[in-house]
Amino acid sequence: MLKNLFKALLIREKYSKLAYQRFCRTTAQFLRSSQNMRWSEEDEVLPDMCPHPKDGEDPYSMENIPENLNYELKMKDGIVHVYDNAEAVRENRPRDLPYPDLETFAIDLSHVLAMIADGPTKTYCHRRLNFLSSKFYLHEMLNEMAELKELKSVPHRDFYNVRKVDTHIHAAACMSQKHLLTFIQKTYKTDADRVVLEKAGQKMTLQQVFHNLNKDPYDLTVDSLDVHAGRHTFHRFDKFNSKYNPVGASELREIFLKTDNFINGDYFARIIKEVAHDLEESKYQHAEPRLSIYGRSPDEWDSLSKWFINHKLHSPNMRWMIQVPRIYDIFKSKKLVPNFAKMLENIFLPLFEATVNPQKHKELHVFLKYVSGFDSVDDESKHSDHMFSFRSPKPEQWTTDDNPPYSYYLFHMYANIMVLNNLRKELGLSTFQFRPHCGEAGSITHLVSAFLTSDNISHGLNLKKSPVLQYLYYLAQVPIAMSPLSNNSLFLEYSKNPLREFLHKGLCVSLSTDDPMQFHYTKEPLMEEYAIAAQLWKLSTCDVCEIARNSVLQSGLSHQDKRHFLGVSYQKDGPEGNDIRRTNVAQIRMAYRHETLCNELSFIVDAVKSEALSE
Amino acid sequence: MLKNLFKALLIREKYSKLAYQRFCRTTAQFLRSSQNMRWSEEDEVLPDMCPHPKDGEDPYSMENIPENLNYELKMKDGIVHVYDNAEAVRENRPRDLPYPDLETFAIDLSHVLAMIADGPTKTYCHRRLNFLSSKFYLHEMLNEMAELKELKSVPHRDFYNVRKVDTHIHAAACMSQKHLLTFIQKTYKTDADRVVLEKAGQKMTLQQVFHNLNKDPYDLTVDSLDVHAGRHTFHRFDKFNSKYNPVGASELREIFLKTDNFINGDYFARIIKEVAHDLEESKYQHAEPRLSIYGRSPDEWDSLSKWFINHKLHSPNMRWMIQVPRIYDIFKSKKLVPNFAKMLENIFLPLFEATVNPQKHKELHVFLKYVSGFDSVDDESKHSDHMFSFRSPKPEQWTTDDNPPYSYYLFHMYANIMVLNNLRKELGLSTFQFRPHCGEAGSITHLVSAFLTSDNISHGLNLKKSPVLQYLYYLAQVPIAMSPLSNNSLFLEYSKNPLREFLHKGLCVSLSTDDPMQFHYTKEPLMEEYAIAAQLWKLSTCDVCEIARNSVLQSGLSHQDKRHFLGVSYQKDGPEGNDIRRTNVAQIRMAYRHETLCNELSFIVDAVKSEALSE
Repeated sequence: MLKNLFKALLIREKYSKLAYQRFCRTTAQFLRSSQNMRWSEEDEVLPDMCPHPKDGEDPYSMENIPENLNYELKMKDGIVHVYDNAEAVRENRPRDLPYPDLETFAIDLSHVLAMIADGPTKTYCHRRLNFLSSKFYLHEMLNEMAELKELKSVPHRDFYNVRKVDTHIHAAACMSQKHLLTFIQKTYKTDADRVVLEKAGQKMTLQQVFHNLNKDPYDLTVDSLDVHAGRHTFHRFDKFNSKYNPVGASELREIFLKTDNFINGDYFARIIKEVAHDLEESKYQHAEPRLSIYGRSPDEWDSLSKWFINHKLHSPNMRWMIQVPRIYDIFKSKKLVPNFAKMLENIFLPLFEATVNPQKHKELHVFLKYVSGFDSVDDESKHSDHMFSFRSPKPEQWTTDDNPPYSYYLFHMYANIMVLNNLRKELGLSTFQFRPHCGEAGSITHLVSAFLTSDNISHGLNLKKSPVLQYLYYLAQVPIAMSPLSNNSLFLEYSKNPLREFLHKGLCVSLSTDDPMQFHYTKEPLMEEYAIAAQLWKLSTCDVCEIARNSVLQSGLSHQDKRHFLGVSYQKDGPEGNDIRRTNVAQIRMAYRHETLCNELSFIVDAVKSEALSE
Repeated sequence: MLKNLFKALLIREKYSKLAYQRFCRTTAQFLRSSQNMRWSEEDEVLPDMCPHPKDGEDPYSMENIPENLNYELKMKDGIVHVYDNAEAVRENRPRDLPYPDLETFAIDLSHVLAMIADGPTKTYCHRRLNFLSSKFYLHEMLNEMAELKELKSVPHRDFYNVRKVDTHIHAAACMSQKHLLTFIQKTYKTDADRVVLEKAGQKMTLQQVFHNLNKDPYDLTVDSLDVHAGRHTFHRFDKFNSKYNPVGASELREIFLKTDNFINGDYFARIIKEVAHDLEESKYQHAEPRLSIYGRSPDEWDSLSKWFINHKLHSPNMRWMIQVPRIYDIFKSKKLVPNFAKMLENIFLPLFEATVNPQKHKELHVFLKYVSGFDSVDDESKHSDHMFSFRSPKPEQWTTDDNPPYSYYLFHMYANIMVLNNLRKELGLSTFQFRPHCGEAGSITHLVSAFLTSDNISHGLNLKKSPVLQYLYYLAQVPIAMSPLSNNSLFLEYSKNPLREFLHKGLCVSLSTDDPMQFHYTKEPLMEEYAIAAQLWKLSTCDVCEIARNSVLQSGLSHQDKRHFLGVSYQKDGPEGNDIRRTNVAQIRMAYRHETLCNELSFIVDAVKSEALSE
């Protein structure tokens, strides 16, 4: 039974290493010890994130871009393969990169799937999780004042000036409703006569657009703007999605919240720069806004990176995530793509191209420096009839109008990111994290797929429903970006949100806003998110600072930034890895977390070892 | 049974009128109709609040102060009596003002007290309240979208730009913890060598103070400042009170949060002006900070008003409340006062003096223009052995070390405010509201006393426990300033707070912060309070705008301001009294509230009338 947990951890470690994603060091050490191997720092496989350019350096500089390698690229079974040259393609001799194997993956997946349904394992994990809860409760009662005393003695550092990263925020909703409203009104004052839209061949000015909508921008209010979620969006993801349309008009979304429109995303860039400015002013708040790549056409990347460069969107307080909506079915029904492989190709091939031939894709090459990673996004509660297995059709054969299931998406995204990361690492370029939406709703299997493939996940609410998975996410310290205010409007009442419980047990959770435009009221959405959690769950300063620390760890900030924000030894385990003068997390807390995790892991190691002896 | 409710309303009406406090117009109309009398607008007794000076006018101008009247003043039975001259005093011939009569008051009080314990009345009220809840639920289901549609069609007005008054906020905690911290650090930079404190005859500079505390202000954090409430303050009012001492040091409270100290309240004035500046910037937010008058000495008023005038503390977005802590027992034990009457005299006599001889008390005369009213404040959960009745010792005879009970305080404060308001009305001066803390904890009798004596109350949580009182507060539309975040840290978990339920039933509730320093996290505490309520209780825009409207109604803002903020007919009943273009409250909602209240009142009127017929 414990051997199964052990095996699940080994599986996650394998896929993490393959893709240059982080795997918890403590856990790795215990895994090695149970294999009677020595763990060493050199064996650790770490991601590579581009540091922000230094003061005075041009973040958009196109100098020093590496030479083209002119490798050949070809998609096979939905995964981009890299070849030295055309000959190698003909001979089917791809470069020596680890290409994932669907069959092995399917077997690994089914192992974990079987395990989460196993009775004794469920009981064991359930009991361990209860124990972790009670243990933390005791820790709190005994050490709360001591933790507070530690924090009080830290000069010049408190909750307000520890670094916090908004680890999950959609760019198209990263401004508050009031901000968007003011922006629209301000823009209208100067730009009423600007042509902003081309519809059915007809060019329209901003004034004409509003005239057609029968609205005067001066009279607009947050009520008529109508982008805020409310009671009506609960369990109605469809209604929620339509909230992205200001005044219910997709034209306004097109004009103000898109990167690729008639005005080349000018307004959207401006408003994001205002958000970035606020973050820079706050100094201690960072965000990783998620921009969409759809996979409709191969040009999306060039267009997006040009938008980024032309509008000079770099900010030291921002990095970027790319979200891929799981809407193959829509593109297929509109005949935009012939099969699923084409969608994958549109998403990933340009990245490989920019990687091997950067001189041909200078903008994309530069933009990718500031991209943390990828997200897979859509309503998880949509059911799929297809069951992912190694007998599933290959992406090239996926020609039905139905959408592939969640796990199918995840495997193929992971596979491409994995190859890409290996290629980029080889070339000394930055790597990407895979950070899908997962466990917000829908089947528990989503969380199994993500356990194998993802650096960290967003939401994770459904871990509530599976003690085995929850315990595995704990043991492997898989980071979870949680957005309780978003959940409160969409899937789960605030009081039922498991964040507090997860935090207490020791899961690696962070707080994020998801969509300030739809959910938040104040000018500081991330602070609002923290404030409400702190108030409602009576979190201590140490609790909220622990969450903030987790958010930095989990983010795509560079190693240099993390050293600066968390302390030079941030990669070390336990209190040693914590610089209280920067994180404001008590060493007592760090020690507790570390001891507790070691204790849980040691049970598994001991069980595996004794089993090995008796064999 | 219904006759008792009727009588209770008549009693409240009587005491409201006597003291120039508002009484709900709809209720008054029904009361008249059941007495077969005609209600007319002229009969209405309304408070008089000084309007803010117009632009360009000097708010501190000492010109046009009325002449002295040289009336004689004398305290009798704890109530200030006004005499034309010394002869009238000798002849015991006070001016013709309504002096309240303890005996009548005690009888009225006991009537309501008996009623709230009456079984059938309890059942009736309980059922009516349940009905109000269910009715609102139906209203919401049927009319929610129609309300929203109304709001969407209102140009230029939304939740962000409707007026909101923070109706309950203590001046000494009206800044956020971060604001106080920054202020202390900023001050230290320029003022380290300023003498700020005299302790045991020794003068100390700011540097010396911090040196003695063994703290470097530069290193201070919100953690070491330690003014925030948390888990440890729940049901511990004592611990909460000590949070007013930054770094746990009463010296810092003395230096930074007092009006009457070695530096004449300079720092406290500055920080309050910064808070006022933020409110003015926000434009739509107002506050009524509560300043303390203790009753230790008769000089407190002069000192406080000099502080106000010298530091030029007037702001168009602020009015002032005077809070009187119920701590006679402390002053008595320190031999600062010989009996309770002396404390009352110290509190009220200076006000009467400034009223009749304004030329002798110019500063106080000017300050009083901006004072909304009075508050009675302390931990209500403290038990008192004494039972207030007409046999209770007169204030002059209250010489024991024990503190008088809550009701005793309330009656004597009300009595003095009542006489004072009548005197001031006669002289064309502004009147005061009585707005005590009530029903935050402790005995249910507090809410009975306040029902008779108070214009509106703060907290009112205990109305949960008495259906009869809750129904009476509904019928009389007694405004209640609620602070759920404060309650959450002190007396009642957020999820159990009755605000939402009260609002739905139609009680007149507003949202207030109580103590931003102790409870709030963001830079906009009042918006944080609204945001959390809106998020957690899924309040609609119409709901929050109704709360904001209630806050203006309940506040001590002048008639002119209220006309401006709510609409010219704001005193009228129902939708007629609502200007949706200013309040953003749907007329459908207003009509629902009005019809519902009329319906409830009509039952009582019908019952009383039919009883009268059958007699």
